[in-house]
Amino acid sequence: MLTIFAVSDSIGETSNQVALAAASQFNEGVEVKRIPYIKTIEDANDVIEAAKEVKSSIVVSTIINVQIREYLTQVGLENNVSVINVLGPILNIASMKLNKVPNYNPGAMWVTDEEYFKRIEAMEFAMQYDDSKDYRGLKNADVVLVGLSRTSKTPLCMYLANKGIKAINIPLMPEVGVPEEIYKVDRKKIFGLTIDPFRLIEIRKKRLDKFHRMPSNVEYASDARVLEEFDFADRIIKRLGCKTIDVTQRAIEDTALIILESIKQKR
Amino acid sequence: MLTIFAVSDSIGETSNQVALAAASQFNEGVEVKRIPYIKTIEDANDVIEAAKEVKSSIVVSTIINVQIREYLTQVGLENNVSVINVLGPILNIASMKLNKVPNYNPGAMWVTDEEYFKRIEAMEFAMQYDDSKDYRGLKNADVVLVGLSRTSKTPLCMYLANKGIKAINIPLMPEVGVPEEIYKVDRKKIFGLTIDPFRLIEIRKKRLDKFHRMPSNVEYASDARVLEEFDFADRIIKRLGCKTIDVTQRAIEDTALIILESIKQKR
Repeated sequence: MLTIFAVSDSIGETSNQVALAAASQFNEGVEVKRIPYIKTIEDANDVIEAAKEVKSSIVVSTIINVQIREYLTQVGLENNVSVINVLGPILNIASMKLNKVPNYNPGAMWVTDEEYFKRIEAMEFAMQYDDSKDYRGLKNADVVLVGLSRTSKTPLCMYLANKGIKAINIPLMPEVGVPEEIYKVDRKKIFGLTIDPFRLIEIRKKRLDKFHRMPSNVEYASDARVLEEFDFADRIIKRLGCKTIDVTQRAIEDTALIILESIKQKR
Repeated sequence: MLTIFAVSDSIGETSNQVALAAASQFNEGVEVKRIPYIKTIEDANDVIEAAKEVKSSIVVSTIINVQIREYLTQVGLENNVSVINVLGPILNIASMKLNKVPNYNPGAMWVTDEEYFKRIEAMEFAMQYDDSKDYRGLKNADVVLVGLSRTSKTPLCMYLANKGIKAINIPLMPEVGVPEEIYKVDRKKIFGLTIDPFRLIEIRKKRLDKFHRMPSNVEYASDARVLEEFDFADRIIKRLGCKTIDVTQRAIEDTALIILESIKQKR
């Protein structure tokens, strides 16, 4: 059993992400513990104590403050605890190349600046127009997602919102059709989410099981119904002339990246 | 001007986060460029070419594949391009300590496993119950946020959802009151969001300006109205006996961490 301590003098989001990425390369036996706000010598000592208490450990640090960062490395060495500095080497090289001293300001990436408020606004936008009959958002959206039920439109909108992108989703349902307004949207902003039909049936069956399969809803996961929906989705996506993304076995982060790169190019 | 290239053999989320954290320590002059899916020798050569084309550069790599990772470092050295491996050293030490070979599977952290579906579910939960008159979600929520309008309840719910936490928010409005169901919720799950009243008035005024200040809404940002709301919020939060968090000047990531740590302890 190995414990990776994700340590930071701010909230530890970056060190936690790095630690999780490393842990995901082992099937088992690795746990990640996040220790934020390491701001003093005493805090640093506590980290090393915690690391010594477990059988086996690595400390992954994104501490910005030079004194605390170096002290942690030093006391790690003395106690035979491996300390890896993620940001230190990058800041040193960057500082040299820019011929500028870093701000050494822990949590600088979480300041509530203009970009931050753009993110907040995008999140509220996503919430407001999710699964809504209100299509006024279409003209202000950066991204419009179309797709059948269970093609991960909602989580994708949320993820994009977190990156400051205003995304809206239009579910494709044969009975309902799509709002006429969508044909006025720049097609480069529209993305059609497609999926392997067998995978979709599987996902929907699982969902029905979970919600105690109401008889009226069984059709939702039936082969005939899903194929009818596919036919409808195909026609709409062709008419829109938009890019499509196959979300089968694709995590939302992955799909989101395709969208982000695509709208960046188009700008 | 310095360009930090965030390079990965998967989607590059981790390297991008590290690069942004480093960039945020300089007020200006640093841009981050994300280059995902570096999977071949040719891809690695392209990275070094891109780095040579800009005035000044650092390559921050989370490449997992050993051959590509080491090739990139080597060709970086030969071309005088600084390459920093974020995951390499951690994987090496972890591998030694665990006496196990890593999977060397790029994108392993984005597999669509059970935890992933938990996140998706939490996101849908947040969307479903945001600003809703439907309080059935209360009994299934992991976290219940209460607070006045503009205390960042919605983005907090989204952020927590992305961590797999089902969060629901109950706006505090004197005219509406809170649903009786909330008094049945374990108070350890409830968090009252507070804010400096002057800051809240400022945020609301900004918002009104943005939405062309409708006369009927001016009260929303008036001193008297805000103080009345504060009075109401105080009473409700006292009656709930829940923990409070002051969100003034606090980024959502920071507030979320307080909540995550608090519910972890309580479990």
